[in-house]
Amino acid sequence: MEKDLRFAVFGGGSWATAIVKMLTENLQKITWYMRNEDAIAHIKTQKHNPNYLSSVEFNTNQLNLTSDLNAAVMDNDVLIFAIPSAFLDTELKKLTVSLKDKIIFSAIKGIVPETGLIVGEHFHKMYNIPLENIGVLTGPCHAEEVALERLSYLTIACADKVKAQLVANSLKSDYIKTKISDDIIGTEYAAMLKNIYAIAAGIFHGLGYGDNFQSVLMSNSIREMKRYIKRVHRMKRNINNSAYLGDLLVTGYSTFSRNRMFGNMIGKGYTVKSAMMEMSMVAEGYYATKSAYKQKADFKSKVRTPIIDAVYDVLYLGKNAKSTFAALTNKID
Amino acid sequence: MEKDLRFAVFGGGSWATAIVKMLTENLQKITWYMRNEDAIAHIKTQKHNPNYLSSVEFNTNQLNLTSDLNAAVMDNDVLIFAIPSAFLDTELKKLTVSLKDKIIFSAIKGIVPETGLIVGEHFHKMYNIPLENIGVLTGPCHAEEVALERLSYLTIACADKVKAQLVANSLKSDYIKTKISDDIIGTEYAAMLKNIYAIAAGIFHGLGYGDNFQSVLMSNSIREMKRYIKRVHRMKRNINNSAYLGDLLVTGYSTFSRNRMFGNMIGKGYTVKSAMMEMSMVAEGYYATKSAYKQKADFKSKVRTPIIDAVYDVLYLGKNAKSTFAALTNKID
Repeated sequence: MEKDLRFAVFGGGSWATAIVKMLTENLQKITWYMRNEDAIAHIKTQKHNPNYLSSVEFNTNQLNLTSDLNAAVMDNDVLIFAIPSAFLDTELKKLTVSLKDKIIFSAIKGIVPETGLIVGEHFHKMYNIPLENIGVLTGPCHAEEVALERLSYLTIACADKVKAQLVANSLKSDYIKTKISDDIIGTEYAAMLKNIYAIAAGIFHGLGYGDNFQSVLMSNSIREMKRYIKRVHRMKRNINNSAYLGDLLVTGYSTFSRNRMFGNMIGKGYTVKSAMMEMSMVAEGYYATKSAYKQKADFKSKVRTPIIDAVYDVLYLGKNAKSTFAALTNKID
Repeated sequence: MEKDLRFAVFGGGSWATAIVKMLTENLQKITWYMRNEDAIAHIKTQKHNPNYLSSVEFNTNQLNLTSDLNAAVMDNDVLIFAIPSAFLDTELKKLTVSLKDKIIFSAIKGIVPETGLIVGEHFHKMYNIPLENIGVLTGPCHAEEVALERLSYLTIACADKVKAQLVANSLKSDYIKTKISDDIIGTEYAAMLKNIYAIAAGIFHGLGYGDNFQSVLMSNSIREMKRYIKRVHRMKRNINNSAYLGDLLVTGYSTFSRNRMFGNMIGKGYTVKSAMMEMSMVAEGYYATKSAYKQKADFKSKVRTPIIDAVYDVLYLGKNAKSTFAALTNKID
């Protein structure tokens, strides 16, 4: 008799913490990898993550906490990555064991800066993981509301629907509803692109535009996202489903979104560099903007993306935010 | 040589005041009808509406203020109605002059309670106005932001595109961008239905649901709106355009929306009656809910509208908000 499939979560941030919490509702044991050994020691004795979602109390009997990446990979079957995309490549380079036959789910929203790929593609291309073993776990979901057990909906996407359902069943609970999807590319691109639109929302807000305009921006963002994703991977999808439109809205309307905050600072006159320093981190949408902008040059047929273009112009070409975004208002409707 | 077409605005509220302000950017003279003679006297001397958007200063030379409904109709060609839908029928019953050959634009979001019709249909059926003389002026647009001259986008819909363009040109300015449409039915239904979804958003908020859920609700609301409008009037339309999705978002995410506030009180435990009394007015979505619910019974093919149904059950059948809305969370995704 084979043992149950074993789950590991990789990452020590708020989203990783939320995912571990969700899994503890269903699984007896979860491996939880994080780099920070002090945090591990703290969780073992104090039963909560000192740095993120510290209100969440864990039953530590359910947790196999480790800072040994290779052991966490080797001993488990379903690997859920929630490491910020900017650090993923560095972490993965520590791997000495194989990822063969592992089921890999990405809960990371963004682009791997070193390769310019979305996370699923990164695993597929750099580690030869077959697409049917790759999945995506996506929102709309702020980790903070998972901590509060406020009802949230997740979409679990995998080309292999059985794997999607397995992971979905491990996450659902009284406060988490799940939906499965086979649109792994589309959901992951949506999760990445929405951060660019959140930066745009932040820039406009910082420049003094109001709620009327914000709703017009979101209406244009979802249409632009639809055009973009259609070029990347054409399939039947309803862009207004929660995983696309819902995810865009929860980020675009959130004043806590790091991407929106980053944009807001730029709108208020900070330089890109000083905004980054002030936030002491890089908003994921910063990399996403470059990647999305570069990638569309390779599309076989052109796609109109005035919002991505304007964010790119400001972040990477140093163009003036006020005039660039004033010009953008004439390109959307 | 014929004189220029003359414009009149009907209504003394914030949206009427905002429309007059927009028109003053382009027209030399605007007739402005309101019932309240004290307000008229105040505007004439103090140059601002004492009750709504009082920060807006008018050049009174541009205004022909009147409380004579018949004169305002008779002397003008383009009539823009911004009277709350609950009072429209009473006002129109005062008419002794004909509406023949008048171009009638509705800036009213809601259902005329006496006939259960959207405003365009009300004029068409009760006053024999041909459809090509009926138009709709729709947001996303909070009047308060027009007062602040914050960039806003309006959609002007009329089966006759020339009339739509004429009205659009009279409204546009540095801070108002306009778009024309021939989907008079769809835009007006969107403006009506969004108030029901704003009530639902308010009820969920009042019950303690958070931002993650709110984005899922909006994602489901726009899909439900699309299904509903498709049954009412099938034509090619992009439901994610500003006039539909944008208008839904600006209302659903606004804490100032009367419909959302009304729902919020119900979610917090007020009865429907006490919420209405507390607000000292009836939220437009209240009538819209009944009308939309009743109307769908007449559709040739069924349409799934779990959100409208839940709001109806709570507002009109006295069902418990908490359990009805908990059940609703299982019907959306």
